[in-house]
Amino acid sequence: MDSTTIKQLDQQFVIQSWSKQANRDAKVVTHSDGIYFWDQNNKKYFDMNAQLIYANLGHKHPRIMNALAKINQLEISAPGFASASKSKLAKKIVELAPANMAKVYFTTAGAESNEQAMKMAKAVTGGYKIFSRYRSYHGSTFGAGNLTGESRRLGSEPSPPGFVKFDMPYVYREYQQYTSEQELSAQYLTRLERQINCEGPETIAALVIETIPGSNGVLLPPDGYIKGIETLCRRYHIMMICDEVMSGFGRSGEWFACNHYDVEPDLITFAKGVTGGYLPLGGVILSEQVAKHFDTNHFSSGATYSGHPLVCEIGNAAIAAYEELDTINHVKRMEKVLGERLQRLLAYKYVGDVRIKGLFAAVELVKNKVTKEPIIDYGSDYGKDTQGYMGAFTKLLSEEGFSTFNHESNVLITPPLTITTAEIHEAMDLFEKALVAFEELYPEMEEGHALNL
Amino acid sequence: MDSTTIKQLDQQFVIQSWSKQANRDAKVVTHSDGIYFWDQNNKKYFDMNAQLIYANLGHKHPRIMNALAKINQLEISAPGFASASKSKLAKKIVELAPANMAKVYFTTAGAESNEQAMKMAKAVTGGYKIFSRYRSYHGSTFGAGNLTGESRRLGSEPSPPGFVKFDMPYVYREYQQYTSEQELSAQYLTRLERQINCEGPETIAALVIETIPGSNGVLLPPDGYIKGIETLCRRYHIMMICDEVMSGFGRSGEWFACNHYDVEPDLITFAKGVTGGYLPLGGVILSEQVAKHFDTNHFSSGATYSGHPLVCEIGNAAIAAYEELDTINHVKRMEKVLGERLQRLLAYKYVGDVRIKGLFAAVELVKNKVTKEPIIDYGSDYGKDTQGYMGAFTKLLSEEGFSTFNHESNVLITPPLTITTAEIHEAMDLFEKALVAFEELYPEMEEGHALNL
Ligand SMILES: Cc1ncc(COP(=O)(O)O)c(C=O)c1O
Ligand SMILES: Cc1ncc(COP(=O)(O)O)c(C=O)c1O
Repeated sequence: MDSTTIKQLDQQFVIQSWSKQANRDAKVVTHSDGIYFWDQNNKKYFDMNAQLIYANLGHKHPRIMNALAKINQLEISAPGFASASKSKLAKKIVELAPANMAKVYFTTAGAESNEQAMKMAKAVTGGYKIFSRYRSYHGSTFGAGNLTGESRRLGSEPSPPGFVKFDMPYVYREYQQYTSEQELSAQYLTRLERQINCEGPETIAALVIETIPGSNGVLLPPDGYIKGIETLCRRYHIMMICDEVMSGFGRSGEWFACNHYDVEPDLITFAKGVTGGYLPLGGVILSEQVAKHFDTNHFSSGATYSGHPLVCEIGNAAIAAYEELDTINHVKRMEKVLGERLQRLLAYKYVGDVRIKGLFAAVELVKNKVTKEPIIDYGSDYGKDTQGYMGAFTKLLSEEGFSTFNHESNVLITPPLTITTAEIHEAMDLFEKALVAFEELYPEMEEGHALNL
Repeated sequence: MDSTTIKQLDQQFVIQSWSKQANRDAKVVTHSDGIYFWDQNNKKYFDMNAQLIYANLGHKHPRIMNALAKINQLEISAPGFASASKSKLAKKIVELAPANMAKVYFTTAGAESNEQAMKMAKAVTGGYKIFSRYRSYHGSTFGAGNLTGESRRLGSEPSPPGFVKFDMPYVYREYQQYTSEQELSAQYLTRLERQINCEGPETIAALVIETIPGSNGVLLPPDGYIKGIETLCRRYHIMMICDEVMSGFGRSGEWFACNHYDVEPDLITFAKGVTGGYLPLGGVILSEQVAKHFDTNHFSSGATYSGHPLVCEIGNAAIAAYEELDTINHVKRMEKVLGERLQRLLAYKYVGDVRIKGLFAAVELVKNKVTKEPIIDYGSDYGKDTQGYMGAFTKLLSEEGFSTFNHESNVLITPPLTITTAEIHEAMDLFEKALVAFEELYPEMEEGHALNL
């Protein structure tokens, strides 16, 4: 099927996420290899968002190509059966997870993983309230959608009872006085503890965090914050759920981002990276304590494709590929390279902040570096027709062949974890070219400018 | 990996749906072919529930084996891109669906499809209430779980606001007087209309039905009922959502069960059969009117693996296989064969009712054919330790090599749609052997019997 037909049928028959459907003009990936893909005009892109932060092994990884070619040798069997690929993958994930983790429940997506983790926490604690944070994204089903603490929640409201939000530190945009990150963390933790007490700790099943909030701008937690969350969870017998759908499987330079902060969550959710995006898989990792509960109590949930043997096989192949490539250490080395390039961006007029952990990075754009006014107003991208200056900038990036993901005032840089030093430099040269062009296009950025629609 | 290790690792590391985890003793499918599979003891089973009512093409279907072997030739791309397999599949599904259907939104599971259909209905109507029925199952995420009108809902409660339940006709267990199916339908529809008015029609976004409730016992709607539901939806501007996750793709002898009843729903959800279970895929089909809404209004939802190109390719292969096999006509022919065998079962002591539409069948067991007392009390299987007499009967079935699914007082018979006349007879001979053994084991079934734990 030629690209014109593909595009025409897509326009005519497919509903696409998070958008108006009229005149979408979707691109077609006609070829891909490593960190690159080509569109229908044979234009080459650096896949600097790994599609949707899932192609963590890049495109056409030979080991996955091999595994895919052989999956028809496996038997399909319902979740009630044991299978080699499922058993092997569950064991492997438990081994990679923090030491207290014991078992895995498989799903097919990130949202569903969060849904199931919440249900587990409710079953274990008897509570029904779920705390989660503003500026977090957890998926778009009713449960995961109402966990979400930003504009993408709205389509899932009204919320089930008991979904409570709390605020999180935003180091770059902090509005309160503090002398150290530790102190900033302490302020937020004190406020959170007060909120827990006001809500009634015994009613609270879980506190859900993206260990490092991803799509909202790689908002790195200040020192002591994540550990403090764990302490509060222990103190009040609340399940600590780390959503590692985006941050898991090496993205942050550890198998799971929670490894950076010396914590042992009760539940970890994952998806995306677990297969490098080659097939849809997600899941929940349960601590020994949570798993024990379900030895003698029914797990009252299920799904047709939980632990699908063919999909699990690709999970096994992806993890083998990560290990073969010594991915964790590679990511740590590449973090240095990319980190230095990011520092350079601070010299540009509209770059307010840069943040990086592993190959999980964001560039925050501002209209004015003194006032830190965001490049677009909060809540004005999803569900809106224009992304104003942000739309203009990402258009320039795309013209340079730098594919990325943006939300609010942040541009994410989350390439395949297989990226090399040379590729990072090449890609970041393009990023800087786009920044230069952007500054030329908008020497001033004032209220009333044509782009402030 | 040998079966002993597979089972041991599964027991140690995997959380299984809907069960206590201790001492699960999961079987391993070591080999499969057509309607058969073999376990670790080389015991052969007739796969009379098509795994979980998804292996509708049977095991190891050659066309799917071929398609799987080649999926590594496809590019992976995020939902924002158009792809050949996605475009082709969306077009094909729209062609197979009722005439008013126009577009497809893809998911990876049945539950998520229902979640997204509800969100669409809310966006289109501005209402927030969702009507659904008792004795229905729609999935186990928060939204789909609270749509569900039976015991499997409990783990998803408390419900989001606005989830309203109504009762449905249960012809075999009807408690009211009626002279014809039409009259019975009219009684239920009158009551439903009154309920709609009491709730306030303008607050109601959707009315969700399993066109033919599946896991609760293939509860065939009486004449005029489904058409009446459509009439009420039109009268009050409520979206009619048909959950065809189980009944879709030929199961009932039509591409979609709603085709039997001459209705044009606003939204149809599907999963399972769309790939024959070879890879996880689901979705929502939108009517032209609903699709139009999203031309100019944002669809405020999304998922990482929506329309995954590799998975869609297997959807295309499955539909091609269904067509090649002239599945719809084959199912209609096999319905006669299975239907006659089912009629014979009514001679047995504990068989209260049999129901069939296409290859979607259930056998309802009772303790007493006069009182129709169900073989197990309502709500006493999921989450409970024993299934009493039902557990005893399905154990006998399994010993005969007849694999199936049971819930409440019903045993489902839902083989791969590829099953032949000879295979149906062979399988049903086993079913009757199990019934004979069951009668021998329990010549009487009274309160206080050892199995009424
Ligand atoms: C942190 C986080 N959680 C959950 C999700 C939802 O995952 P999915 O799109 O597979 O439902 C995402 C998706 O981007 C995510 O980034
Ligand atoms: C009618 C119906 N709807 C929804 C679902 C949920 O589908 P899934 O298990 O893929 O989430 C099922 C599963 O059996 C079903 O039978």
